[in-house]
Amino acid sequence: MGAINGKTYTDRIDQLKSEVWIDGGRVEGKISEHPAFRGVIESQAHLYDLQHKTSIKKIMTYTSPITGEKVGTSFLIPKTKSDLKKRRLMAQEWARTNAGLMGRSPDYMNTVLTAFVASTDILEGNENCFPEHLLSFYEQARENDFSFTHTFINPQFNRAPLHFLDEFQHPIAAKVIEKNSDGIVIKGAKLLATQGGITDEIIVYSTANPFDKSYAYAFSIPSNTKGLKFLCRQSFSSDTTRFDYPLTSRFEENDSIVVFDNVTVPWERVFYYDNIQVANSFTSKGAFTSLALHQVVSRQVVKLEFILGVAQLIVDTINTGEYQHVQEKVSEIIIGLETMKAFLIASEAEATKNRNGVLLPAINPIYTGINTFQRLYPRVVEIIQLLGASGMINIPTEKDFEANIKNDLNLYLQAKTKDAKARVKLFRLAWDLCMSPFGTRQTLYERFFFGDPVRLSSSLFINYNKKPLVDRVERFLEEY
Amino acid sequence: MGAINGKTYTDRIDQLKSEVWIDGGRVEGKISEHPAFRGVIESQAHLYDLQHKTSIKKIMTYTSPITGEKVGTSFLIPKTKSDLKKRRLMAQEWARTNAGLMGRSPDYMNTVLTAFVASTDILEGNENCFPEHLLSFYEQARENDFSFTHTFINPQFNRAPLHFLDEFQHPIAAKVIEKNSDGIVIKGAKLLATQGGITDEIIVYSTANPFDKSYAYAFSIPSNTKGLKFLCRQSFSSDTTRFDYPLTSRFEENDSIVVFDNVTVPWERVFYYDNIQVANSFTSKGAFTSLALHQVVSRQVVKLEFILGVAQLIVDTINTGEYQHVQEKVSEIIIGLETMKAFLIASEAEATKNRNGVLLPAINPIYTGINTFQRLYPRVVEIIQLLGASGMINIPTEKDFEANIKNDLNLYLQAKTKDAKARVKLFRLAWDLCMSPFGTRQTLYERFFFGDPVRLSSSLFINYNKKPLVDRVERFLEEY
Amino acid sequence: MGAINGKTYTDRIDQLKSEVWIDGGRVEGKISEHPAFRGVIESQAHLYDLQHKTSIKKIMTYTSPITGEKVGTSFLIPKTKSDLKKRRLMAQEWARTNAGLMGRSPDYMNTVLTAFVASTDILEGNENCFPEHLLSFYEQARENDFSFTHTFINPQFNRAPLHFLDEFQHPIAAKVIEKNSDGIVIKGAKLLATQGGITDEIIVYSTANPFDKSYAYAFSIPSNTKGLKFLCRQSFSSDTTRFDYPLTSRFEENDSIVVFDNVTVPWERVFYYDNIQVANSFTSKGAFTSLALHQVVSRQVVKLEFILGVAQLIVDTINTGEYQHVQEKVSEIIIGLETMKAFLIASEAEATKNRNGVLLPAINPIYTGINTFQRLYPRVVEIIQLLGASGMINIPTEKDFEANIKNDLNLYLQAKTKDAKARVKLFRLAWDLCMSPFGTRQTLYERFFFGDPVRLSSSLFINYNKKPLVDRVERFLEEY
Amino acid sequence: MGAINGKTYTDRIDQLKSEVWIDGGRVEGKISEHPAFRGVIESQAHLYDLQHKTSIKKIMTYTSPITGEKVGTSFLIPKTKSDLKKRRLMAQEWARTNAGLMGRSPDYMNTVLTAFVASTDILEGNENCFPEHLLSFYEQARENDFSFTHTFINPQFNRAPLHFLDEFQHPIAAKVIEKNSDGIVIKGAKLLATQGGITDEIIVYSTANPFDKSYAYAFSIPSNTKGLKFLCRQSFSSDTTRFDYPLTSRFEENDSIVVFDNVTVPWERVFYYDNIQVANSFTSKGAFTSLALHQVVSRQVVKLEFILGVAQLIVDTINTGEYQHVQEKVSEIIIGLETMKAFLIASEAEATKNRNGVLLPAINPIYTGINTFQRLYPRVVEIIQLLGASGMINIPTEKDFEANIKNDLNLYLQAKTKDAKARVKLFRLAWDLCMSPFGTRQTLYERFFFGDPVRLSSSLFINYNKKPLVDRVERFLEEY
Repeated sequence: MGAINGKTYTDRIDQLKSEVWIDGGRVEGKISEHPAFRGVIESQAHLYDLQHKTSIKKIMTYTSPITGEKVGTSFLIPKTKSDLKKRRLMAQEWARTNAGLMGRSPDYMNTVLTAFVASTDILEGNENCFPEHLLSFYEQARENDFSFTHTFINPQFNRAPLHFLDEFQHPIAAKVIEKNSDGIVIKGAKLLATQGGITDEIIVYSTANPFDKSYAYAFSIPSNTKGLKFLCRQSFSSDTTRFDYPLTSRFEENDSIVVFDNVTVPWERVFYYDNIQVANSFTSKGAFTSLALHQVVSRQVVKLEFILGVAQLIVDTINTGEYQHVQEKVSEIIIGLETMKAFLIASEAEATKNRNGVLLPAINPIYTGINTFQRLYPRVVEIIQLLGASGMINIPTEKDFEANIKNDLNLYLQAKTKDAKARVKLFRLAWDLCMSPFGTRQTLYERFFFGDPVRLSSSLFINYNKKPLVDRVERFLEEY
Repeated sequence: MGAINGKTYTDRIDQLKSEVWIDGGRVEGKISEHPAFRGVIESQAHLYDLQHKTSIKKIMTYTSPITGEKVGTSFLIPKTKSDLKKRRLMAQEWARTNAGLMGRSPDYMNTVLTAFVASTDILEGNENCFPEHLLSFYEQARENDFSFTHTFINPQFNRAPLHFLDEFQHPIAAKVIEKNSDGIVIKGAKLLATQGGITDEIIVYSTANPFDKSYAYAFSIPSNTKGLKFLCRQSFSSDTTRFDYPLTSRFEENDSIVVFDNVTVPWERVFYYDNIQVANSFTSKGAFTSLALHQVVSRQVVKLEFILGVAQLIVDTINTGEYQHVQEKVSEIIIGLETMKAFLIASEAEATKNRNGVLLPAINPIYTGINTFQRLYPRVVEIIQLLGASGMINIPTEKDFEANIKNDLNLYLQAKTKDAKARVKLFRLAWDLCMSPFGTRQTLYERFFFGDPVRLSSSLFINYNKKPLVDRVERFLEEY
Repeated sequence: MGAINGKTYTDRIDQLKSEVWIDGGRVEGKISEHPAFRGVIESQAHLYDLQHKTSIKKIMTYTSPITGEKVGTSFLIPKTKSDLKKRRLMAQEWARTNAGLMGRSPDYMNTVLTAFVASTDILEGNENCFPEHLLSFYEQARENDFSFTHTFINPQFNRAPLHFLDEFQHPIAAKVIEKNSDGIVIKGAKLLATQGGITDEIIVYSTANPFDKSYAYAFSIPSNTKGLKFLCRQSFSSDTTRFDYPLTSRFEENDSIVVFDNVTVPWERVFYYDNIQVANSFTSKGAFTSLALHQVVSRQVVKLEFILGVAQLIVDTINTGEYQHVQEKVSEIIIGLETMKAFLIASEAEATKNRNGVLLPAINPIYTGINTFQRLYPRVVEIIQLLGASGMINIPTEKDFEANIKNDLNLYLQAKTKDAKARVKLFRLAWDLCMSPFGTRQTLYERFFFGDPVRLSSSLFINYNKKPLVDRVERFLEEY
Repeated sequence: MGAINGKTYTDRIDQLKSEVWIDGGRVEGKISEHPAFRGVIESQAHLYDLQHKTSIKKIMTYTSPITGEKVGTSFLIPKTKSDLKKRRLMAQEWARTNAGLMGRSPDYMNTVLTAFVASTDILEGNENCFPEHLLSFYEQARENDFSFTHTFINPQFNRAPLHFLDEFQHPIAAKVIEKNSDGIVIKGAKLLATQGGITDEIIVYSTANPFDKSYAYAFSIPSNTKGLKFLCRQSFSSDTTRFDYPLTSRFEENDSIVVFDNVTVPWERVFYYDNIQVANSFTSKGAFTSLALHQVVSRQVVKLEFILGVAQLIVDTINTGEYQHVQEKVSEIIIGLETMKAFLIASEAEATKNRNGVLLPAINPIYTGINTFQRLYPRVVEIIQLLGASGMINIPTEKDFEANIKNDLNLYLQAKTKDAKARVKLFRLAWDLCMSPFGTRQTLYERFFFGDPVRLSSSLFINYNKKPLVDRVERFLEEY
């Protein structure tokens, strides 16, 4: 089969009839026609179609080592620097169609699965670990071009230090409650699965400090598995039009709580279970961080490019480029963009092979990159608002341009370089990027991507190898 | 008549039938029943009702010097420190009902008009100035408890330095195009009138650098004056419910472009016209800045108090108060609140009388306050998001709590100190404060209130009396 | 005796012959003639002289309730708002002579002692507490105009959480090792006593979390008490001249480690001992914070005024006032100054009486003020450097202006509004303020005044009464 | 001759007997023995010696294409990526000996000259330009391993916009006043030449906006040229010892005003003159920015590594690593370091050839890097102070450890992991890095390296190619 197109993806999702709840009701009929999901499924389908576009097919696919068919580059296990570069170009090709706004474009999750299979060395020979399940499932996914979401965060019941112990008494987070001949049985919840309910599969795992081995597992199951429910947050895209909500209407992915109501995970889909040590190290010590963040930073670069373009277009439109403070604000975006690009390039230039022979982007620049972006993104979004000023509030709808006041609008809302409607279109785009519920959710998403910024800082402090530099200072002190 | 109640206000607005356009259509029927305005008109009506609440009537009203009736304290021309304090208490009493989120609660505009009448010394004896019109109109407004909006910013056609000259060739900003026996005739547009179309009157004036005297005027006219149109931006409150949008559904004020289609302003409503010098000094040199900002800062303090309450309630709910970085973030809000309170108290403690015998809050603390808040408010809103984290995304709707998944929600969304629905209610409030279109418009509003932050900084540099301090340093240098 | 003059102060200090060590040797002879102390003793003496200056004597002194003599206002126990204002005016009068750069001008410590005596309610009736010693010593100090330093921080041996327990095994911090008929005997060290060794007396106490009651004490002893040693840090003022180091040469106060080599504190000088609860609450719950910080903020305002003056004088001298970014930087100082002034005024306006009938400045604004200044001061110092730019490096000495190159200097270092020597004088002043060892120690001093900024933030979080605001939000949530 | 050693360098400088003035007198005798220069000349000599150290000779030198002798790598004109890497390794090898604190280690200026010769395409065929002089001089410099300083900034007489015009009337900046058969004659001053007077040669040029062609020139002359004077700022290293001032005593380079008292520059040393267009483009459009900044960022990386080492050593010493805010602060340094490293690596990875066939590091990352460092360096220096806290004030001198109080110091100043003297040694190092006159001059130097940060931001705004990104947004807007 190999790399699919948009129609195959859409049909497959429609046929699953996964249990998805939104705004008080269960989704019935084709989910690709539901107002909350129509836009994003179309956008996702468009991405799959691009795998078959002649001019970029060489970037978007490679030859399956098993079948000889063309499969998606996001499944490529990198062995050389040109593999890494190819992965970057692929990710950015996709990201450019959505301005980097889709966190669950297929490359993200495919990279996650690829990183998992690149980390089988951590599973090999350990108790309750099945690296062979992982490898076999990866191949199945690659050849069928499965789509995915994932979930791993526990519900926000109590965030105090050592809260986990507290949750043992109020079992809320999903855990293994039974093992039987069919597989392991899961009960509880996880949050938040972005695009939950509109992918073929969901990968589930737990991270960090489980004190109880029933929380230590990883697996993948189809979205329509019995007992699996996706409880969506409020949709932001229902009733949105392209002109008024150019981004929301196309890229709103939704996020859902995932409920496991005694869900049986068949053994062949279990990657590991009941192994705290492996659960604590699989993502942190394996290929995950490095490969997944390489995809993420590739996308974030495209997002920043888009934001720089929007910023400059606003400046051109209302003609503010001569102000030094405007220059300084736009420069801040440029500096941010160049910084993220440098992290990406440096991570490739300094890539090293792991024990499985996989070439992993250097962790330091890419991890610093993700931490930097958590603070950078809210700032560039703030700059867009500072540049747009009253133009971000003064947003009539498309209907207004068809009403009896259109002449007034055309006269009074024109800008130096754009007619009124084109100018409002630009400002609505900027508004949707920064100030709509979709836009603010984007900002929150980037703020917390990969964890709380404070926790990431601490983790950098703890894991960074500072010893050679401390030693250098000690030698310096001894010298005189 | 004196201080009105909510019903009088609502009836009067409904009877005006001003020309208000929204989402492609003109508002027909009672505007107080229109989904875009119903909520805010109810909230506004509630404010008027408070003028008659026994326990606070002494704060909310005072005795008219003309009629002996009780009139609104927001019209009080302050002569003593206790007058200033009474004005502050009145403003905060009102603000507490809406968490300081209504920028056009009646006290704001009533204070503007009061500040205008306290500045008649600037008009006295000058060409084309009518201080007597202003005084007489003020008395009429006070005795009838008129509601107001105002507008003074020119459309954002070209923001380059000296752009104004450019606009002369593309007349867009509202200007006087004719003077006749009835009055002055205005053509052009102004933006943005918050609550435009749902007030009795609109005060119109121009500020800053008019090179052409046809832009130099000030007046007030009824909202239903012939030729006057209010073109609203997209409404954020249509189709919102109390649970899902606790703030938007009640406090969304809308903002409109105001179009003057050959509007005649009767002479008795003209405060001045064709006088560039007066136009340039009336608001900047008169009582306006000091009195209006005293009301504004009073409201902003209440807004910060509300934000501190929300922040702490989130911390309590998910039990994060032991983290030092959480403590530091909440402290930042405390510091912000105490800073704004100090500006307010200091402005009263150091108040001085102007030439009209009006006691004006000291300009330095109050102006510094407004400038501080422009940067502070976006930061506290950011802190709420950092504290709320995934809880700000995980927002099901009220309908979800009535659907077949309610048991799942009740189990998995409960928090340490709140049941699931109460917890979601809190987070939806926080979301509506920071991340809904209403919330982001609030942030933009505060960012630019009183002008671009950079411009306010420059203005502080230029107007602040630094000479005595420079002299002190010069003496210090001479001493040794 | 009452308020003394500079000569009395200097003679008294010289006669003490306290044990002061600096740069490898013990100070011999008159300490007022030692190059490390001459400047600051002269500056301090000048302050005492000002108590007798006719034009300000009314501010600087008041009538002793015991003797009827004029005593220093810094000893005044405030009972009315005009007392508070008088204290502020006194502190600022003194601060202006040294640009607010002397942290141990007599008013600071006199206020500390005054605050202690205003807190006797905390000692009354408690074990091992002697409020009567404190009162009697305060009166003696006031009538004789004693000069003071104090010390309370333990050596920085180990700063980990619970480090205190660690120190029990390596006794380093000063503690009571014996009680006998003469008094309590102290052994160990404290740091850092600013002006240690050049004051009549030293007040010693411990703060925060003593787990061992031998660390829980407070007392005052003469600087020349047997066994008491002051180990000074490197002096920055030795070999400095007025032109080259206008600030260092006059205001360098030095800081010393204080060693107690079995020092006996006579019983009449012991305020309390062996009482952990009192030690933990005396300064935090008493009048200390509020009264001491009122003096401190008064001084900091003067310091900011001086910095604003220097900033503006640099701008004038090299003519950079037209740049918007320069305007914004100077505005930042203005905003900082107005903020600190507002805290000060607000703390007086909202002062309340304690159980002893002492009128205490409101704690919230004054504590927020000190916390604000910790971050503000380093920033304004940074701004001076950004404004001065290469002028801060290009600093020839006074001797250069007398050498054969003086014509070159006069030609090439002249500025728009100053001749070369006057310009260099200004820039050397700015350099001494920001970049000399004296200047950087000032910055560090203000950064940590009253404790680590992070700890102050946490303390604000813990102690601020947020409950009414949380309740308000809870009511708001219940309303709809 | 080729790459020299330290003795050759020192002897050559001593023999020059350049006219250097400091603290009111002219330097007489061997300048390498003068207290203001001894330390830095020793450190510089040590660098030259390293060129002959066997283990790194391959990095530090390459074979001269003319003589076959080993010449310094800092003269290498890069043609391949491994050339660029070799240049980086060489620069960092040198920088590690001085913690990156020497801005004028020989590689900086040698790189500048190399960049000049790599930019001869800009001179070719233009009026009054002599690319052949430049090439010939470069070869002479390389083969003799000349040491250099440079100067290009005009005196800070008046910094207002268009101030240059003002200076025409008060000729202060160095200009060509005569052309004769010997060469061009220069009169006026330039500032600041770091290491001015202790190098073989000085390169002089002018930048930016000369309206008068007499300011448009570039040349190099020996430091002892007749009429050339170096007027040094106050020395920070006189009377410093290694223990008390570990950095100042070794790396203080001094900065001087350079006076041209009718200095004749022989024609063969003139690179160009009387050509405004070339003067405006030679450094900005040529290889200068890219090659020079590659050396600079290489050095800055080493500086940050040192600062990270110092920070961590302080944390270890006083045992504060468990505090989350300490972790966050150290992480900030790590992030800064990784960011600068990424810029450096990315600039090499994306290097491109110029018209002369020279491989130039990519300009965007390297220019962003320098702009980032301007803000980063003051912050990391601030962090060191925040981490060191009172330890940065509590700094006795080496003599104290030899005096009768040494037992007290040894007891009371010990730290968790270091004895008292070793701990004071560390804190004095940190103090010298951040708070001594040497340290603060370092901070100012980095703040303004390559120009005012605001100007660099504007320059980035103006020169960055934003068009493709704006076009992408325009296409995005057209799509729907």
